Amino acid sequence: MIIQQFFVPGIAHSSYIVAGDRTCAVIDPARDTERYLRAAREMGVRITHILETHLHADFVSGHLDLAEATGAAVYAPTKGNCAFPHYAVSEGSEIPLEDIRFSVVETAGHTPESLCYVATDLARGDSPVSLFSGDTLFVGDVGRPDLFPGRAEDLASSLYDNLHDKIMTLPDECEVYPAHGAGSLCGRAMAAKRTSTIGYEKRYNYALRIKDKDAFVRALTSEMPAAPDHFTRCSAINRAGPALMKSLARPVPLGPGTFFKKMKDDRSLLLDVRSYQSFSGVHIPGAWHIDLSGNFPTQAGWILPPEKDILLVVEEPRHADEATLQLHRVGFDRVAGYLDGGMLSWGAAGLPITRVPVLSADETHTLVSEGGAVLVDVRSSEEWDAAHAESSVNIPWHDLRTRFTELNPTLHYILMCRGGQRASIAASILKMHGFGMVSNLGGGYTAYKRAGYAP
Amino acid sequence: MIIQQFFVPGIAHSSYIVAGDRTCAVIDPARDTERYLRAAREMGVRITHILETHLHADFVSGHLDLAEATGAAVYAPTKGNCAFPHYAVSEGSEIPLEDIRFSVVETAGHTPESLCYVATDLARGDSPVSLFSGDTLFVGDVGRPDLFPGRAEDLASSLYDNLHDKIMTLPDECEVYPAHGAGSLCGRAMAAKRTSTIGYEKRYNYALRIKDKDAFVRALTSEMPAAPDHFTRCSAINRAGPALMKSLARPVPLGPGTFFKKMKDDRSLLLDVRSYQSFSGVHIPGAWHIDLSGNFPTQAGWILPPEKDILLVVEEPRHADEATLQLHRVGFDRVAGYLDGGMLSWGAAGLPITRVPVLSADETHTLVSEGGAVLVDVRSSEEWDAAHAESSVNIPWHDLRTRFTELNPTLHYILMCRGGQRASIAASILKMHGFGMVSNLGGGYTAYKRAGYAP
Amino acid sequence: MIIQQFFVPGIAHSSYIVAGDRTCAVIDPARDTERYLRAAREMGVRITHILETHLHADFVSGHLDLAEATGAAVYAPTKGNCAFPHYAVSEGSEIPLEDIRFSVVETAGHTPESLCYVATDLARGDSPVSLFSGDTLFVGDVGRPDLFPGRAEDLASSLYDNLHDKIMTLPDECEVYPAHGAGSLCGRAMAAKRTSTIGYEKRYNYALRIKDKDAFVRALTSEMPAAPDHFTRCSAINRAGPALMKSLARPVPLGPGTFFKKMKDDRSLLLDVRSYQSFSGVHIPGAWHIDLSGNFPTQAGWILPPEKDILLVVEEPRHADEATLQLHRVGFDRVAGYLDGGMLSWGAAGLPITRVPVLSADETHTLVSEGGAVLVDVRSSEEWDAAHAESSVNIPWHDLRTRFTELNPTLHYILMCRGGQRASIAASILKMHGFGMVSNLGGGYTAYKRAGYAP
Amino acid sequence: MIIQQFFVPGIAHSSYIVAGDRTCAVIDPARDTERYLRAAREMGVRITHILETHLHADFVSGHLDLAEATGAAVYAPTKGNCAFPHYAVSEGSEIPLEDIRFSVVETAGHTPESLCYVATDLARGDSPVSLFSGDTLFVGDVGRPDLFPGRAEDLASSLYDNLHDKIMTLPDECEVYPAHGAGSLCGRAMAAKRTSTIGYEKRYNYALRIKDKDAFVRALTSEMPAAPDHFTRCSAINRAGPALMKSLARPVPLGPGTFFKKMKDDRSLLLDVRSYQSFSGVHIPGAWHIDLSGNFPTQAGWILPPEKDILLVVEEPRHADEATLQLHRVGFDRVAGYLDGGMLSWGAAGLPITRVPVLSADETHTLVSEGGAVLVDVRSSEEWDAAHAESSVNIPWHDLRTRFTELNPTLHYILMCRGGQRASIAASILKMHGFGMVSNLGGGYTAYKRAGYAP
Repeated sequence: MIIQQFFVPGIAHSSYIVAGDRTCAVIDPARDTERYLRAAREMGVRITHILETHLHADFVSGHLDLAEATGAAVYAPTKGNCAFPHYAVSEGSEIPLEDIRFSVVETAGHTPESLCYVATDLARGDSPVSLFSGDTLFVGDVGRPDLFPGRAEDLASSLYDNLHDKIMTLPDECEVYPAHGAGSLCGRAMAAKRTSTIGYEKRYNYALRIKDKDAFVRALTSEMPAAPDHFTRCSAINRAGPALMKSLARPVPLGPGTFFKKMKDDRSLLLDVRSYQSFSGVHIPGAWHIDLSGNFPTQAGWILPPEKDILLVVEEPRHADEATLQLHRVGFDRVAGYLDGGMLSWGAAGLPITRVPVLSADETHTLVSEGGAVLVDVRSSEEWDAAHAESSVNIPWHDLRTRFTELNPTLHYILMCRGGQRASIAASILKMHGFGMVSNLGGGYTAYKRAGYAP
Repeated sequence: MIIQQFFVPGIAHSSYIVAGDRTCAVIDPARDTERYLRAAREMGVRITHILETHLHADFVSGHLDLAEATGAAVYAPTKGNCAFPHYAVSEGSEIPLEDIRFSVVETAGHTPESLCYVATDLARGDSPVSLFSGDTLFVGDVGRPDLFPGRAEDLASSLYDNLHDKIMTLPDECEVYPAHGAGSLCGRAMAAKRTSTIGYEKRYNYALRIKDKDAFVRALTSEMPAAPDHFTRCSAINRAGPALMKSLARPVPLGPGTFFKKMKDDRSLLLDVRSYQSFSGVHIPGAWHIDLSGNFPTQAGWILPPEKDILLVVEEPRHADEATLQLHRVGFDRVAGYLDGGMLSWGAAGLPITRVPVLSADETHTLVSEGGAVLVDVRSSEEWDAAHAESSVNIPWHDLRTRFTELNPTLHYILMCRGGQRASIAASILKMHGFGMVSNLGGGYTAYKRAGYAP
Repeated sequence: MIIQQFFVPGIAHSSYIVAGDRTCAVIDPARDTERYLRAAREMGVRITHILETHLHADFVSGHLDLAEATGAAVYAPTKGNCAFPHYAVSEGSEIPLEDIRFSVVETAGHTPESLCYVATDLARGDSPVSLFSGDTLFVGDVGRPDLFPGRAEDLASSLYDNLHDKIMTLPDECEVYPAHGAGSLCGRAMAAKRTSTIGYEKRYNYALRIKDKDAFVRALTSEMPAAPDHFTRCSAINRAGPALMKSLARPVPLGPGTFFKKMKDDRSLLLDVRSYQSFSGVHIPGAWHIDLSGNFPTQAGWILPPEKDILLVVEEPRHADEATLQLHRVGFDRVAGYLDGGMLSWGAAGLPITRVPVLSADETHTLVSEGGAVLVDVRSSEEWDAAHAESSVNIPWHDLRTRFTELNPTLHYILMCRGGQRASIAASILKMHGFGMVSNLGGGYTAYKRAGYAP
Repeated sequence: MIIQQFFVPGIAHSSYIVAGDRTCAVIDPARDTERYLRAAREMGVRITHILETHLHADFVSGHLDLAEATGAAVYAPTKGNCAFPHYAVSEGSEIPLEDIRFSVVETAGHTPESLCYVATDLARGDSPVSLFSGDTLFVGDVGRPDLFPGRAEDLASSLYDNLHDKIMTLPDECEVYPAHGAGSLCGRAMAAKRTSTIGYEKRYNYALRIKDKDAFVRALTSEMPAAPDHFTRCSAINRAGPALMKSLARPVPLGPGTFFKKMKDDRSLLLDVRSYQSFSGVHIPGAWHIDLSGNFPTQAGWILPPEKDILLVVEEPRHADEATLQLHRVGFDRVAGYLDGGMLSWGAAGLPITRVPVLSADETHTLVSEGGAVLVDVRSSEEWDAAHAESSVNIPWHDLRTRFTELNPTLHYILMCRGGQRASIAASILKMHGFGMVSNLGGGYTAYKRAGYAP
């Protein structure tokens, strides 16, 4: 029995190959499946099983892509009512793979159909060796149960029961392999470490340490971080069965003239994925900005309107492929093209440009102190609550999509996040709505604090 | 705290990156260090620490290569008396890395200077989270203490004490990250799984389950598998500090004529690394054969005479690079060149060729039954003891280097291993010593058994 | 104007990117189009034109794959009557691409619809700068006009006229970029050099130096090398429009048991693509053998029956992908799978194996002299005519498919080609037809000659 | 005979492999030699000859790196007085390589020791087939003879004689393979096309069409473009023999704090290689800016002070490797490190930042018209002479290093080039000298012209 973890930054998603001597299972595969094919080939095993722990809310799964490429069978929760061909598994189902036995424990909580696979290594012994815990148990956290409107308490209650009855009863030495790590919004407090053990989690996981069920339900249903918009879309895609990646068109390079024409079409959406420094330097009026090097897929899933043809502005052509993959991960399948030659060719074509001044902490402080600008902190309310500058107001970056109405388009707004990337998203939103004076505090709250202007 | 494992097949070696937010340590690095540099870059961390658990006997370590490439500090056991610049660590030493603390426990046993690093993740709690166990504790096994002539019992005794006093006292949930996996000869019973936990090992590891110290010592010092020749060479190289990989010459292509001339030089060694099928089909008289796709580095370290200029015969030029890396892993730093154009150009040059007939189980059985050939089983004595064909004699492949004298060069020998690769090594050795009729049983013992000729 | 050549070994095919500042044309693209997409991206240009010189007989063209990936327009000869969407071009057609003008000259000869594109670099001057000569004019040769039964003389006559009227009248300094180089069977005497000039070809090309038309027609219609079977298939595929590469299934690994079952199916074909040394060492009874490292695609196109599901035996899994691509090049679109674990796992499964002894020149000579074996020279008749061993008989390797009937299955045949690869193909054919004693002369005629047994 | 061209953008350098059946020569290799090793391996030939046409002024050559990696012999001009081991060649020298003969013709002109290699393909005929023309004859141009102070006329005269006596006397059909293409400053009017023929150049090359020697000398010694600073350094490096690439340290990641400290050291130089948009958005005060995606190596060689430890600011870590290679190409061997985490981490560390506003054509025009800013055109004098905005003054970007003294640090300067990249270099220079208000006209002259503000 060999376990190999595959981690996808951005969505902080972990998937696994669990291999015997000749065959293997892939658990919760990502949509770009080449990595599993290559790894299996290197190990000298064939992919014969694909195991889904639940209908992922935060990304589109690669189960069908992988099944198509390998002929492997897909196993998914009975309660998921999946529309694609699969073996439906439920409490007590057992899936043998050579010397390995996967036993299903249903763990409704994060989602109603969630389950975990408990693996036993029969070559060595009868007791559980590894838990593939999906979004039920994370390193340092548990799956948030608040994603289904009106069902949060029920699901939290169920999660408590399942954790205490089925998970915490596993041996201390049982390894824990979750579907997410730090950075995912499927929980709120995941640790950086990507695997753990039952014993260690029982000892240090804040949620497992809440003895009282009511307290647990309260804790898990209050003050949860906001959930991105695509969380309500991806589950449905995963249930129906996503389009195969190879059926999706690759974005084509478009010259500035063509690009300009296409971007004016209502069915299109203009998305600049360059660094926030680049976007600040010069960009196309009307563009959404989300820095590809940041938390791109989640941020894109969160704020971009679905069902649009996406037009990309990139720093280098290869970033068009990268951005496209990331967008596909969160359910945007229509990436039409990218600006050929980038902003250099756009500028040289004499087409409209604009900028977002990046201000230093000192410049910002002076302007704000003198009343020349308003400091808007676009971090999450949790971050704001933890510490903030007295002179600032808080509107989380994603909320600006609607809450821009609370601001006055004739004033100068300086946007601040932790480093600069989310403020740049916010800047792109404000400018889209006709705000003329929008700046970004370079280095964000961190720099502001170092300069002594915030606690 | 993030842990990433790097597994090198062949020597079945596991090394690790243990990363904080900005920096990381590499534990027991392999000699080809590019993988660590790339991984660290992808994680966005700098390599600042290099931790050696002991003086590896079975491979040349990459600590100096990595130090040269990164400027990181090397930490090695005080008792190793290492000749290169390093921080010497011993029982109780602590090495901090951001939120991570590595504590040293000395665990003499496999080697006198062996130690383990116990990691604590201070971001989460005070109890040990991971054990980097070097060659002290493996998944399903412990490090063999019999490599030092005359000291086996002492070391086994020490190993028992250290395991029981320092390792088995760690919490059940503590993860175990060893330096080797199944396939390594640093133990005899390693499981395929590449990581484990203290609790699971306490429950199922045969060595940890031996309660009685004397029984433990007896078990660990008797009936151990043979140790390859290079096990006596690599420790010394690692203590002195290996040559930097970038200082070693890359093998050059040599035309058939030049190759023929060079291979006759006493300082040279002719090594054919193609598949056993290819070698059987046609090869150069006088060549050693070790299949690159098999257990190449260990087999090469085991039987090849050191201090020679190695001349390679390969299937494709890129295999010359691959074989060279594998040879470097086990301490052969002088790979002079490879046959340009391969055996096709050699044959066309009208230079001498020979072959090893690959016989089927039926052909073999007929020949042996009728007295036309002798079946030599070249598997290890452990495999032979487990099951063998009645009509066969056992001389392990590596022993044939000296024990060929027990055979008669005028008889027809059919060599059998498990599949065909070790029999091919054995065939190359016999032919080197003037045996004229040497065949290989295709599919080896496995095929012989399936055909009903062996139990 | 920038010209980049792409050379595909095996079919010795040259294609071209001809680029302006922002856009480019691809001339006669291969079926694996990623190389053009990458090159265009690196040059910073978009692929907007795809130019076909004729309906290639020797390989399946990538025009539709490339059109699908880029949206570029395909240009093809009017006389080709192509069934896919295209711009039909004929004598005098002009295709502008920025500062470049492609002028069409029809040059029926190699095929009735053949044409050339004469490029003018308007940025520099009005006279032709480059000729994209398809299969009309090669470096050192011209396109063979004998591929259409009964039309050879007409086409040769037409070729003469077109060369003299339209090609040799171009300026001496005009560059020549043909669709093939040395190794292609679309001519018989191509030079190694991959590009040339009109003046140089007029001076040294044997065909252009034949002044008399009748002599030209005679020379080009007599003593031409045999044409591979697929030459009669590929043109039709190219006219109809080949299947898109992305629609073709990738071969899957098949365990020995499954492989054994599938290979017995009448619709399947067993193809071993390992080196001739490996095949000789051990192979599966009933397999076709064609060495992937040799002239694989042409040889495969020549002898394999079409419309079969191909099952591969490979040395390494990545060779399955490589062989599949090569097979797709010559019109075999159904590659079903490959033997997982290769011959090592096959042998260990105890499944049937056989071998082809590779004999040295001395062994061969002794056997043949003493009447113990018959030496069959499987080289082409042209090679045989040039020089051969007295004791040998000539049956070209591809003719053995039918002419095996001229041989006696109870005799020992030693097959000889130039080096060993074609003899191995021949061996696989004879064994398929029940010949029991078939050997391969290692190093072939070259070795036999060096040993003094042949002139 | 096979010829393969290798083109390096940036320095627009062409090198060549000229191969026979088993061996090959590399002509004028670049310093990153892996490409030649790989290509030779793919062709199945060994690199045995390295031919230098002259002491390159614009880049450091890879002859010694390649000799070290292959053992090949270096051939260089006798008149070059090279200090490394080589075969000195001069007029009439002949270098045989299988069927290929290279004949040396001395062609002093671009440099005193310049020579060309005339290749004959003896397999086909006796007349020259290809000219490897170094920097003597380009496509559309000839090598500039004005690089040696006080010797321009003599060298131009010599160039005229050599072209007319030795080059233009070659057959029209002889191919021309020069060492540079469009973009190089070793000439002034090179065409985009990368190879040509003698006949075509005689017909259309402006320099070859000047019949009168005096007129030629005048034309080639007047109004030549400025020569970059490193042109006076590289020849000497190439003569002495450059350091081996493998001996140079790879740049290491440096955290913001360390970076800040190091950049203040007098021996250091701070170089930002991100896009001009990014630099404009936010950068470190005191940085040089040269956009890696532009004409980076030549611009770096031109303006950066030599003998400094270079500290890089990059968009992505892999750009540090790319920039380092480019810097090595033009003789900067000391690249010490790069800013780990890029400007995002710098900003978050609260370290000083600044920006360059990118203005649109309209904004610029308004400001300049109203006297609020001065428009400085930093293009070359040739570009300025061809067309410029009335309201602008011309100081070529590289001259600003000294000519900044002509400007007034208290005024607002808007810098304009053709697209934005050179203006950004200029902006970095002005800011280094204390100019407080420096902007960049986005899209440069091209945009200004499209907006109707310039002719």
